[in-house]
Amino acid sequence: MEKPWATSEAVRAADPDAGHGAGADFHLELSGPGGVRASLIRALREAVRSGRLAPGSRLPSSRTLAADLGLARNTVADAYGELVAEGWLTARQGSGTRVARRTAARAPERRTPPERALRRPAYDLRPGTADVSAFPRAAWLAAARRAMAAAPHEAFGRVDERGRPELRAALAGYLARARGVHADPERIVVCAGFTQGLGLVSRVLRERGVREMGVEEYGLWFHREALERAGLRCLPMPLDREGADVSVLEGGKAGARSVLITPAHQFPTGVPLHPARRAAVVDWAARTGGTVLEDDYDGEFRYDRQPVGCLQGLAPERIVYFGTASKSLAPGLRLAWMVLPEHLAGEVLAHKRAGEWSSGVLEQLTLAEFLASGAYDRHVRAMRLRYRRRRDRLVEVLAERAPHIKVTGIAAGLHAVLELPPGTEHTTLQAAAWEGLALEGLTRLRATPPAGSAPAPAGLIVGYGTPPDHAFPGALEALLRVLPPGE
Amino acid sequence: MEKPWATSEAVRAADPDAGHGAGADFHLELSGPGGVRASLIRALREAVRSGRLAPGSRLPSSRTLAADLGLARNTVADAYGELVAEGWLTARQGSGTRVARRTAARAPERRTPPERALRRPAYDLRPGTADVSAFPRAAWLAAARRAMAAAPHEAFGRVDERGRPELRAALAGYLARARGVHADPERIVVCAGFTQGLGLVSRVLRERGVREMGVEEYGLWFHREALERAGLRCLPMPLDREGADVSVLEGGKAGARSVLITPAHQFPTGVPLHPARRAAVVDWAARTGGTVLEDDYDGEFRYDRQPVGCLQGLAPERIVYFGTASKSLAPGLRLAWMVLPEHLAGEVLAHKRAGEWSSGVLEQLTLAEFLASGAYDRHVRAMRLRYRRRRDRLVEVLAERAPHIKVTGIAAGLHAVLELPPGTEHTTLQAAAWEGLALEGLTRLRATPPAGSAPAPAGLIVGYGTPPDHAFPGALEALLRVLPPGE
Repeated sequence: MEKPWATSEAVRAADPDAGHGAGADFHLELSGPGGVRASLIRALREAVRSGRLAPGSRLPSSRTLAADLGLARNTVADAYGELVAEGWLTARQGSGTRVARRTAARAPERRTPPERALRRPAYDLRPGTADVSAFPRAAWLAAARRAMAAAPHEAFGRVDERGRPELRAALAGYLARARGVHADPERIVVCAGFTQGLGLVSRVLRERGVREMGVEEYGLWFHREALERAGLRCLPMPLDREGADVSVLEGGKAGARSVLITPAHQFPTGVPLHPARRAAVVDWAARTGGTVLEDDYDGEFRYDRQPVGCLQGLAPERIVYFGTASKSLAPGLRLAWMVLPEHLAGEVLAHKRAGEWSSGVLEQLTLAEFLASGAYDRHVRAMRLRYRRRRDRLVEVLAERAPHIKVTGIAAGLHAVLELPPGTEHTTLQAAAWEGLALEGLTRLRATPPAGSAPAPAGLIVGYGTPPDHAFPGALEALLRVLPPGE
Repeated sequence: MEKPWATSEAVRAADPDAGHGAGADFHLELSGPGGVRASLIRALREAVRSGRLAPGSRLPSSRTLAADLGLARNTVADAYGELVAEGWLTARQGSGTRVARRTAARAPERRTPPERALRRPAYDLRPGTADVSAFPRAAWLAAARRAMAAAPHEAFGRVDERGRPELRAALAGYLARARGVHADPERIVVCAGFTQGLGLVSRVLRERGVREMGVEEYGLWFHREALERAGLRCLPMPLDREGADVSVLEGGKAGARSVLITPAHQFPTGVPLHPARRAAVVDWAARTGGTVLEDDYDGEFRYDRQPVGCLQGLAPERIVYFGTASKSLAPGLRLAWMVLPEHLAGEVLAHKRAGEWSSGVLEQLTLAEFLASGAYDRHVRAMRLRYRRRRDRLVEVLAERAPHIKVTGIAAGLHAVLELPPGTEHTTLQAAAWEGLALEGLTRLRATPPAGSAPAPAGLIVGYGTPPDHAFPGALEALLRVLPPGE
């Protein structure tokens, strides 16, 4: 039944204006899997679709076609019946089998453009992703095997929109230990990326009467877009050497403001939030009932000291903690997590359930096993070393060969900010494009500033974590070629 | 560094009103991974969190605490510094280190309820899921291993919201062969379940001016909810032995109506759409510019003959085809797909991108390999046999022991409808609940009928595909116990 069966026969085709059986020859390609009957159905369908069998035309009788093709008459009659049931053909007493008229309404032979090749730059120093060439394939597969062996049957069935309990338990332990998160597995919700979680929480806050969301003056534009899509207005908070100036949050109608912030390592400027400001934002939230969304996107990666713990532990009922596997493992996993205050959890889950935003259980179970077995810690340690070396190399090379370019921010994360001479950002990005070097500029990350503000300083965000090891030296050289010359 | 280090020391605690070092004893449990410094930080944080170190209270000097604990003074000073940076403690010249005042705002010791045990009935005959005990774990892992070995690095990086090209190519081949879908990989969009895809398409249709969506009189209430959330009004189409009466779609403002339909095997009544009605709905769409959403949820499973091909091939520019792995493999995978008309693809993808609704790439790559290697066909064939036997057994047992109960619908799918005597559905479901048998009744699946309609007939949807093989006989017996007696 399964063996391909390929032949080709000339058959007298049907002509709408001629009697039965008269007309031009046409080919029926009987091939492919599934036996003769299935092949004949496919071939006839294709003949109708392509227009070779015109709408309204009469087909040969099943007896005639069977004789032509050397098939049993029943096989042909059966295929005709099938295509009548599907709507390709019509059969009326006395008028034989014809091609249905409506097939004339078929789509014009417009060709969709061929699969867009993902335009791939020669070098990629954009921020936001781990070095995916270092994805721990073997360790991940081993964890998948163990997870698959241990999973109860029900894991493959209906899903819990919070995420698998195995993963939430593993995350609770890890987050408490590594990031000081006050993490009850009951309050953890797994999501398919930070932006998905942000969208869910923003909608709930909007329904609760929040209208404005404090955002850092610089950050990812698609985060601000997600807030705006949820109906929130972005309220930019100026950044200085101590992080975001959270005093901007004061004022406004009670309960109408919340804030999105990256306290451990501001994205993109790379400063940690000053202890006084950490205190201030927590105080503000407690006083006004505001909610703090803490985006801990790269908290695992600090090179000069232990990372500063998260803010969430200070006020778990006022802070939503967000973490992700996109920086520690790979964005392709589409695994992130949030730790929610109790009072928000129910509504966030209701939204998640309604939109069927659940993640696949196998990758969740594998990550749980990866965390529990210590493989996650081992991978993070190895990557910390790799990224640290790259950062050191970047700083060193710039000091040597472009000493007029300053690297700002703490020794942490997967990216650095390079300050450029005023007015040179746009030309630098253009030069990078010509070099086949993908880069991100500071200007595009700026929230719309209030009218009359000073222009944004020129700068580049260099995602030194992005390229594979072998491509990093080349990417650095390309970067040096496009940087504006010194005095 | 990694070995657990557990001890407990009595330390003179700080008292806000007393001088430095005076006060009650308290315990610091120094244990867990990460070395002495990390343990001390955790222990102090926990002491503040639990209230054992009161807000405002002064801590012993680092020298004193170090002596008490037998630690190096630097370790303690370092831990204090860390907790100041995190906002748990404050340090002021001349006033020593104190517990931050704001920690008084900590959450009350409200315990969240323990992890809700997923209430698991003794027997589950609800429809909507495959027998997940038969999930092909070994074959799936083998496919995952091959997929992992073959995947390019970029697969782990930024995602294409249409889904991985490997999966879309494999689906295009499979769907054309098995279901007669006119499937260009460019038009396929992978999603995390039918409802997610339905939500995306509905929003786009709403933006295009569609206001009403024809739905079959019986169907899943959460599908109707998804339509209503997108701002569409449901227009029920009566069902008879030929499927949905699509003439209801006529009328209304041009372009303001679309339709959601299950042509191969109506859910739940189990009839296929009659050829004349297939033709009528395609004609209607061509004439009015309406869009047909074809939910082909269990098209692989027909037991009496080859399945009827899909509707989509007849008018690919007017029909959105939806398929899913929830019935053929397992709902836990969260993998489904749609084949979109060219004119809808761009907007659907824009919505998907904005909400970060992408699925994990590893499961996508694994499914692609599973399809391409023939493992999918093998699994479907094996399951077809299993489900067919169960359906036969159900019909046989009812004929023998409850001949007054009629099974309706064609020999297909993973569920059957049992007609009950009028007025007995509610009591039957109650009896089932007492027996620990999960069942679905017909009434709950009915779209709100027009005022004055006849009451819904009484019936049960028996998902014979749901339980594992070993539990099926017990589930059948439970079902027989709860069925209303005959005359």
